[in-house]
Amino acid sequence: MADKPRLVQEKLDQAVAILDEQGIDAWMIFVRETMLSPDPCLDLILGMDVVWQSAFIITRDNQRIAIVGHHDAENVRNVGGYTNVIPYVEGIRNPLIDTLLNLNPMQLALNYSEDDAASDGLGHGLMLLLQRYLADADLVERMVSSEQVVVALRGCKSQTEVKHIRDAIATTQAIFREIGKVIKPGVNERAIAQHIHKLIGKKGLDTAWDRAFCPTVNIGPDSPVGHGGPQAEYAIKPGMLVHIDFGVRQDDYCADLQRVWYVRQDKEQSAPEPVKKAFDAARHALLAGFDALKPGVEGWQVDEAARQSLVKEGYSEYQHAFGHHLGRSAHDGSTILGPRWERYGQTPYGIIEPGNVFAIEQGVAVEDFGYVGLEENILVTESGAMWLSDPQTELWMI
Amino acid sequence: MADKPRLVQEKLDQAVAILDEQGIDAWMIFVRETMLSPDPCLDLILGMDVVWQSAFIITRDNQRIAIVGHHDAENVRNVGGYTNVIPYVEGIRNPLIDTLLNLNPMQLALNYSEDDAASDGLGHGLMLLLQRYLADADLVERMVSSEQVVVALRGCKSQTEVKHIRDAIATTQAIFREIGKVIKPGVNERAIAQHIHKLIGKKGLDTAWDRAFCPTVNIGPDSPVGHGGPQAEYAIKPGMLVHIDFGVRQDDYCADLQRVWYVRQDKEQSAPEPVKKAFDAARHALLAGFDALKPGVEGWQVDEAARQSLVKEGYSEYQHAFGHHLGRSAHDGSTILGPRWERYGQTPYGIIEPGNVFAIEQGVAVEDFGYVGLEENILVTESGAMWLSDPQTELWMI
Repeated sequence: MADKPRLVQEKLDQAVAILDEQGIDAWMIFVRETMLSPDPCLDLILGMDVVWQSAFIITRDNQRIAIVGHHDAENVRNVGGYTNVIPYVEGIRNPLIDTLLNLNPMQLALNYSEDDAASDGLGHGLMLLLQRYLADADLVERMVSSEQVVVALRGCKSQTEVKHIRDAIATTQAIFREIGKVIKPGVNERAIAQHIHKLIGKKGLDTAWDRAFCPTVNIGPDSPVGHGGPQAEYAIKPGMLVHIDFGVRQDDYCADLQRVWYVRQDKEQSAPEPVKKAFDAARHALLAGFDALKPGVEGWQVDEAARQSLVKEGYSEYQHAFGHHLGRSAHDGSTILGPRWERYGQTPYGIIEPGNVFAIEQGVAVEDFGYVGLEENILVTESGAMWLSDPQTELWMI
Repeated sequence: MADKPRLVQEKLDQAVAILDEQGIDAWMIFVRETMLSPDPCLDLILGMDVVWQSAFIITRDNQRIAIVGHHDAENVRNVGGYTNVIPYVEGIRNPLIDTLLNLNPMQLALNYSEDDAASDGLGHGLMLLLQRYLADADLVERMVSSEQVVVALRGCKSQTEVKHIRDAIATTQAIFREIGKVIKPGVNERAIAQHIHKLIGKKGLDTAWDRAFCPTVNIGPDSPVGHGGPQAEYAIKPGMLVHIDFGVRQDDYCADLQRVWYVRQDKEQSAPEPVKKAFDAARHALLAGFDALKPGVEGWQVDEAARQSLVKEGYSEYQHAFGHHLGRSAHDGSTILGPRWERYGQTPYGIIEPGNVFAIEQGVAVEDFGYVGLEENILVTESGAMWLSDPQTELWMI
């Protein structure tokens, strides 16, 4: 991608500002064989794989030091943005200790986190190795979790990142329009998925998540809702809802949207009452969450607003979160707009910040008809949420 | 891929046999948000992504238990191979503790390893969470590293895996033949890389590693050898060596080969002496390593045999390993056929086993001409190494 170096530069600059703001002297990404064992932060601050043990150290006084196997040094230099690239041959231990003792940081932030997968790229075994390497240098007790650094860095999108997400959304919406043309009785879930894969194949793009489940397609009342794969046995009949959860990955950034159609029976002018009521309830809940999405609010409060709206209209609580970060990954880590359940750990307590991009979703199963699911993508600005997608405001009729 | 369930089934069966052989009661893969934070073992024993915290527990008495978020349960059941799929909604802690107390394993192997990236899929933060969850259940002291389990499971390829690797090698060799036709004066490194990308694009395949560096192309004496990206500034002139390091990923399995051409000057009948001598030395070293590659031998001994051969013919030692595992990844973890350097940790002490597939490589820089690099892929059988690729036995002349 042509603007990869610009993106890395933007994120490195942002990282330095975050370290300064949070009062952390140094952040180190420590990795090896990243093709096998990637750290999600590496895409942000480097954008390439490395083979041998490698350390990327960013300091609040704007040093950016890379210590890498000699084979990788040339490529890391070409990425740009690093003030010092130190190659090694036999082992990283000595150049690493020398560099760290020279920097002498009071805190050394490392990528481990109980709650945020995006901040947990340091393998437990690699941590044991690092602790052994640094034990004699009095550096182990300075190790702290980088979670808050990563939450801020990954969560607050740069201008270039927002542009890429907008592009992915535009492409995804265009594909939804194309798909609308093939939704008719007789067509099954797998055929719809194959058609979508053909469309993105033509554009040379990937799906935003595992293509076996992207898109997710639900036709009618019997198709199980969840993260399931499209099944040939579920085919469209008049009087059914058709629901698709889908996004493309384009220039390394994702969209994540849900759209829903109703296939009319003979002589029907509009959708049946229970379907209309469910669509309205889902839409109201989505808007309730949207209105609550403001800088300074905690994630669970947004979920709560949507959840209460849905319950007030007579539906049971949904068993998932209302929203999640969106970026390089369709689930882009850190703050969850979700309930305070054990499995979400501390992530629902994260604070919404300007520059966050979220996918927000809401859905209701309608007995005898199928599933109404809506999902939109939004950007948080100083004054609140802003749509990045064109929201589906009414049921699409076939 | 059509035979994904069969592959998972083969590897699950193999895992049970390995646990029994190594006397380990249970192995647990503990993950979450695997799109962001993948564990390399998950591809082997599941072949799909999961979202919430998930535990896959395999026991030596052939139980295969999956505890997953309710959204993922249906898909995990569809994969097959699991005797019990336990869905949860609010938190994994209780079903996890109940399951483990019920199994009551003396050893609970987890994916952490100082040396093997393929065995280090458990994030340090996730390990802290797991230790907290299991603290009251007297399970923490039973945790052991799964390194030897993973080394055996990943390293010993099943029949289906070997078939996939053979297919990837066949495709890669076909592409090398195509590329031979476009190697001529004036063509630069980037043009060769683009041509290769076009050929694999037509076949709907991926590169075996990051496409920015796959292929690696080196034209003439000035192009830096390593993991560098192809540069437009290096174009072919008569009297230059052209070296390509490349492989495709096909059906999730990789090839990794190097080939070399010499572009003749006017009236040259054969390559100049220093080029011929370098090719022969690289080939002899490759064969010396090949001959040493037998079950029961340690990785460093294979490297040593190749290294000594090269030094004996008057060349300096190479600054990398002679060989590495090949499979789902071009660098497929565990035993390295490499020197006993600090950065390789314990991996050169790994023992060669039947069913291992290695990429073995050897190269020599030739002053004024360029780089001679050879890389072949082999399968270890009871009686020694067997070529999977068709070895390059002479310099290819243009």
